[in-house]
Amino acid sequence: MIRKVLIANRGEIAVRIIAACREAGLATVAVHSEADRDSLHVRLADESVCIGPPYAKESYLNITAIIAAAEITGADAIHPGYGFLAENAHFAEVVQECGLTWIGPPPNAIRLMGDKAVARKTVAARGVPVVPGSQEPLASREEAVELAQTIGFPVILKASAGGGGKGMRVANDARELRHAFDTARHEAERAFGVGDVYLEKYLTHPRHIEIQVMADQHGKVASLGERECSIQRRHQKLIEESPSPVITPELRKAMGDAAIAAAKAVGYEGAGTVEFLFQDGQFYFMEMNTRIQVEHPVTELVTGVDLVLEQLRVASGQRLSFSRNPKLSGHAMEFRINAEDPETFAPSPGTVSFLALPGGPGVRVDTHLYRGYRVPPYYDSLLAKLIVFGQNREEVLRRARRALSMFVVEGVKTTIPLHLRILEDRDFREGNLSTRFMERFLASP
Amino acid sequence: MIRKVLIANRGEIAVRIIAACREAGLATVAVHSEADRDSLHVRLADESVCIGPPYAKESYLNITAIIAAAEITGADAIHPGYGFLAENAHFAEVVQECGLTWIGPPPNAIRLMGDKAVARKTVAARGVPVVPGSQEPLASREEAVELAQTIGFPVILKASAGGGGKGMRVANDARELRHAFDTARHEAERAFGVGDVYLEKYLTHPRHIEIQVMADQHGKVASLGERECSIQRRHQKLIEESPSPVITPELRKAMGDAAIAAAKAVGYEGAGTVEFLFQDGQFYFMEMNTRIQVEHPVTELVTGVDLVLEQLRVASGQRLSFSRNPKLSGHAMEFRINAEDPETFAPSPGTVSFLALPGGPGVRVDTHLYRGYRVPPYYDSLLAKLIVFGQNREEVLRRARRALSMFVVEGVKTTIPLHLRILEDRDFREGNLSTRFMERFLASP
Repeated sequence: MIRKVLIANRGEIAVRIIAACREAGLATVAVHSEADRDSLHVRLADESVCIGPPYAKESYLNITAIIAAAEITGADAIHPGYGFLAENAHFAEVVQECGLTWIGPPPNAIRLMGDKAVARKTVAARGVPVVPGSQEPLASREEAVELAQTIGFPVILKASAGGGGKGMRVANDARELRHAFDTARHEAERAFGVGDVYLEKYLTHPRHIEIQVMADQHGKVASLGERECSIQRRHQKLIEESPSPVITPELRKAMGDAAIAAAKAVGYEGAGTVEFLFQDGQFYFMEMNTRIQVEHPVTELVTGVDLVLEQLRVASGQRLSFSRNPKLSGHAMEFRINAEDPETFAPSPGTVSFLALPGGPGVRVDTHLYRGYRVPPYYDSLLAKLIVFGQNREEVLRRARRALSMFVVEGVKTTIPLHLRILEDRDFREGNLSTRFMERFLASP
Repeated sequence: MIRKVLIANRGEIAVRIIAACREAGLATVAVHSEADRDSLHVRLADESVCIGPPYAKESYLNITAIIAAAEITGADAIHPGYGFLAENAHFAEVVQECGLTWIGPPPNAIRLMGDKAVARKTVAARGVPVVPGSQEPLASREEAVELAQTIGFPVILKASAGGGGKGMRVANDARELRHAFDTARHEAERAFGVGDVYLEKYLTHPRHIEIQVMADQHGKVASLGERECSIQRRHQKLIEESPSPVITPELRKAMGDAAIAAAKAVGYEGAGTVEFLFQDGQFYFMEMNTRIQVEHPVTELVTGVDLVLEQLRVASGQRLSFSRNPKLSGHAMEFRINAEDPETFAPSPGTVSFLALPGGPGVRVDTHLYRGYRVPPYYDSLLAKLIVFGQNREEVLRRARRALSMFVVEGVKTTIPLHLRILEDRDFREGNLSTRFMERFLASP
């Protein structure tokens, strides 16, 4: 039995975990860096321990200090939140070796899903669709053309050793592919010292759609519907919603089953998210996030399940609190309020000189903000999550505009004006989304 | 068509009305007293006008100043909120005579329901149950005994001219009644100069249960379920919930039909509440509140209907947005956070020196508070409404305790600690409620 939870995190998620612990009747220990002494999670937790200097490496990533804090305070479990050590299999192992309960999936599941190539193979072996192609290096131009003709154009060549766009080339037909093959090999060799390239189907306008799963220690794995997270800038999600405007009940079932198969493939326990790319009615496994996610509240609003409380239950050995995969009811959308210049996206640390949070029907705000709070420059820029619920997407859009317009933050720049502009976009309003949305949106006058 | 709404109110309800106007695409005008210059509703409205000195009589009750503010700003409608002028039929008439839209029921409906004796007769004539008894003065002791034997003991004698408990006497049998009759007459004569008394069935442990109704200008009157409001202190509600722990679907239907009949009896339009006393499976009309109520959010959460937005629609001549009486889904509870000493109930004006609002699943906060806000001593003490939603009452109680414990207000005393104590009470937890609850609760050690 868990009695006291140390929260190895900060910001809004630390506050969110305190809330779940309160409901479960568990005591809480906050840890904090020297920069976070006055942070809300420190104030709200039952106890708190300073674990080091501002830089995360010396505090929120400092395994020794965190374990020591748990020992000093007599905490018997650790919740890692998201980011920092949440997907660090070694940390999970250390926690367990110290006789503490790890509120997360088994370390081995974290490890298997942490290596993307391994994850892809593991889930593909269970019949989960992956983006067609070959992860093996291509021997020749003609092998590339043959494979491309099998899976269909367009295709993308990627450097086996690569990353960051180097050695990546899109080809729309065999002629382009023959030409691109040599160029990509040369570029890969120059950039990484290895010329190997492989080939995948190129998705021109994919959506990012993910499935929330929750698994207990008794072999039960449930899916809790999808979240559409296509509104991203540089792979940072900005707006998430559930249900997705394009997912039918049949697709939801198919993606849910695939996500459950992926989770079962690694012996998953706890809350996790299986991320897919979706285009033209097809979905492809991308990766699995082995932690609670920032955007978990949208699923909470449409399913009625408290996912963080469920994590605590599962970690205590209890069964899932629901017997079937919950049905989605209504519509929810989350807007990430970041301390950023809404034009340049430059971080905007500083002191919050005025704050008013919106209320009224369908509005939830998860935040660690208060007036007078100094936004430190050391960590991610998430200040608050505005989560809006309504009976349908139209109502949510209306309520979102109202709530954003009544969300007052002064002293730091925030993404609120950006969200208000996105809400006016016709494609966004009509649900015509893809991961390329923000690129197009920011380029338009 | 309405285009610009003047909000003749202050505090959280003014902010709530701004939210509804934003969703309806309507411009807003705030009015404020000199004491409310820095109030949130002034900041959030599109325009604002100072209408007079702090005392409500000279500002929020100042009809001339409010009408002038509407004329100056070109507002074409007035929303009165609750309290102040909301149930002033004369004000409603002046608004209409000035060619402005009154966002409320017809003045005549306000007037008929404003006189309790008239209201009782009006609805009784339509078959709505009222507390058995006679509002006519009793001619003799024996007439009293005869009537009491018809309706059943216990009964209560009340002074016809009375109020404030003077001339009121409870009798449990004929002997007690004969004795009480003379005492009550003497007391009434001494207190009011008139000895007339009448008799009603005495409800020993009634619940206060009210029905939300909404009527459009096309003859449609809908009921939106009940609110249990038995947790009151000196007739001031403290906690409200929906559904009531004791109302069955059959009773909900019967009370809804009675409420609709009461509304139809006075040609009602807009949002209104029909209040009943409820005991031993029977309900009795008490009065009708011809305005939006403080506790309207609990109904919004279990029906999904935005009641203030609906008021705006109805006032613009639109039909109700829902075709049937909405079904109740889940459970909601509201806690009034007042600036009061939780022990003595003395008002606690002052400056809010720290503020953190709770978030997380199932939590809504409607408030005009911000850190630095000076709570003025001139108006009611309501600072915020914490409204908690969950799948059932148990979940709501758990979430409520969590949310109250994470609702931080410093600088003024609030009712938060009182609510936390009430949540521990066994009768409260089990739903054993009556309007006598707080009396008993406050008397217990």
